[in-house]
Amino acid sequence: MAEIRETRADHYLIPLPRALEDSMHGRMAGFEVVTARVRDADGAEGVGYTFTCGVNGGAAADILGREMAPRVAGRDADLIEAIWKDLWWAFHYGGRGGPTVLALSALDMALWDLKARRAGLALWRLLGGYDPKVPAYAGGIDIDLTPDELVAQTYENRAAGHRAIKMKVGRPLLREDVAKIAAMRAEFGPDMPLMVDANMAYTVDGAIRAARAFREFDLVWFEEPIPPDDPAGHARVLAEGGIPVATGENLRSLWDFRTVIASGGVSFPEPDVTNCGGVTPFMKIARLAEAHHLPVTSHGAHDITVQLLAACPNRSYLEAHGFGLEQYIEAPLVIEEGHALAPDRPGHGVVFDWERLERLRP
Amino acid sequence: MAEIRETRADHYLIPLPRALEDSMHGRMAGFEVVTARVRDADGAEGVGYTFTCGVNGGAAADILGREMAPRVAGRDADLIEAIWKDLWWAFHYGGRGGPTVLALSALDMALWDLKARRAGLALWRLLGGYDPKVPAYAGGIDIDLTPDELVAQTYENRAAGHRAIKMKVGRPLLREDVAKIAAMRAEFGPDMPLMVDANMAYTVDGAIRAARAFREFDLVWFEEPIPPDDPAGHARVLAEGGIPVATGENLRSLWDFRTVIASGGVSFPEPDVTNCGGVTPFMKIARLAEAHHLPVTSHGAHDITVQLLAACPNRSYLEAHGFGLEQYIEAPLVIEEGHALAPDRPGHGVVFDWERLERLRP
Ligand SMILES: [Mg+2]
Ligand SMILES: [Mg+2]
Repeated sequence: MAEIRETRADHYLIPLPRALEDSMHGRMAGFEVVTARVRDADGAEGVGYTFTCGVNGGAAADILGREMAPRVAGRDADLIEAIWKDLWWAFHYGGRGGPTVLALSALDMALWDLKARRAGLALWRLLGGYDPKVPAYAGGIDIDLTPDELVAQTYENRAAGHRAIKMKVGRPLLREDVAKIAAMRAEFGPDMPLMVDANMAYTVDGAIRAARAFREFDLVWFEEPIPPDDPAGHARVLAEGGIPVATGENLRSLWDFRTVIASGGVSFPEPDVTNCGGVTPFMKIARLAEAHHLPVTSHGAHDITVQLLAACPNRSYLEAHGFGLEQYIEAPLVIEEGHALAPDRPGHGVVFDWERLERLRP
Repeated sequence: MAEIRETRADHYLIPLPRALEDSMHGRMAGFEVVTARVRDADGAEGVGYTFTCGVNGGAAADILGREMAPRVAGRDADLIEAIWKDLWWAFHYGGRGGPTVLALSALDMALWDLKARRAGLALWRLLGGYDPKVPAYAGGIDIDLTPDELVAQTYENRAAGHRAIKMKVGRPLLREDVAKIAAMRAEFGPDMPLMVDANMAYTVDGAIRAARAFREFDLVWFEEPIPPDDPAGHARVLAEGGIPVATGENLRSLWDFRTVIASGGVSFPEPDVTNCGGVTPFMKIARLAEAHHLPVTSHGAHDITVQLLAACPNRSYLEAHGFGLEQYIEAPLVIEEGHALAPDRPGHGVVFDWERLERLRP
């Protein structure tokens, strides 16, 4: 038994080199990281983390450090399913989403890291092991770029090893989006894997109109065409728009994914390990996708997510965009020829530079 | 324009006279109240609040006081729809549920209170005005009571003015629940409006089995037979179980309600103004129910909710159970002959005893 001795929560605010903007979240000057450090009675440690777009992080840290930590003290760290279920229900009323699930995600990730480190196994091996070489794509936050700027950014991404690119859509005029996609296809040809992401900007009928306008460009997927709360709407966009749909970064549980998958509204489920409840539900979502003959992609936290997709035979592309977190971790992920390689060090392999992070207290 | 000058958040922990327990939330020794006080440039004030079962409240207070308050400062307090939409999207990533929506609920309630007080109108009149006399029921948390104890508790509730009763179900053996319901019908006859509440204890097939066992007792509704994340499952319980289904205290948005209503899985939508996002979405949910020819009931916070149901032609029963909050407010709601009367004082009419609350800092 690996008895949990201490769980520590820390809250950091990481400034962005330049403010980002997408169609729905508005301006984002920095992002928050909330970390979980679980130490067991033998002194072994596991680390987890979650993100926000600049708000709700204090709440997640409060729940994790003040409320969840005492509840897991003394428990066997190996019994992650038992801990997860107990926390889900203990925090259900007032929780079941929002900062509560972010906190749970960080804690769950730390428990898996601890388990894998104790076992001396890379997490992707512990979770089943499929292939450490995972196809990746560069996810840009580029709604405000002109076609020329977008092309220039894509050259940078290709120089950094990327072969697949995702760009934002959802500008006020649909033809502005179409012009940018056309510029990408004109410059990089018909075979470069290309995705678009609307960050929930459309109504259902607006998304169908957009999908039809995008159809000639042979996109890999159309991401988050509409808000996450409308499974039936997703099904319409997919069927009537006629191009594959990705969604999931704003779903917060295995059951949210089940509902949208069952509705027939998603081609590429896209869980985020930092907000879907952690590694435990991420893997269940990936297996649920497999059961439905669907590929699984990902959102955010690529340094750990590469480990998870490396354990999935149905893994599609890993989303890679770092928000600058790479400055605060040892050995950040490298993309080569469009692929990321899950490292073979024990655990999930992400080691924070705690001293540098210390300067980023909010 | 009623310019918002200050928004204050406070966090209290209210002990229960005796610990309560239901089938899923486990033991609850106290509940948290997080209050919102919005003051405008003229010195007028509006008050809102939210609850938790003992966790997540610190997070809600942090979001409300530290993150939402500065965002609404300087805005016109009358433009609640605009403020609500902006906050929903500003807090969407990492929010959209959980403590974030609890915080938003309290703030929205305060803005409606302020608006109604400034207008010199009781909230139920401002919201449309239907009938201040609202049928109510006593919601017991009584899963551990024996049939005799439950009957005794019901006599107390009737002496306190109640004519309709809700009891908990979801005991390990279904026949224990059936015996309690049978004891209630034997004692109080076939005409007393009687509801049961499972607090999500069942699987879908287990709920159908239970509903069929309950069918002979002519219940008003079967509440939360299963967890909230399964709209299709609700539809099966309703159709195959053959008795009306109530759900909603664990739904956190208008869109959650839309999905379960559209699935055909709910007979009595049951929003809670303290956790569905506030008065603004509560009223939309009530109107959505009306559009579907459904009655609307409620969960929690009866002192304010009576105002909301008094504005709804499709209002069903108001849930009344106080958790002891009545000790901290002036003129708590009175139940007479099975009805509550929405008071006619300006605003929502709930006035806290702030000095007494001050002793309840967590
Ligand atoms: Mg996205
Ligand atoms: Mg209930």
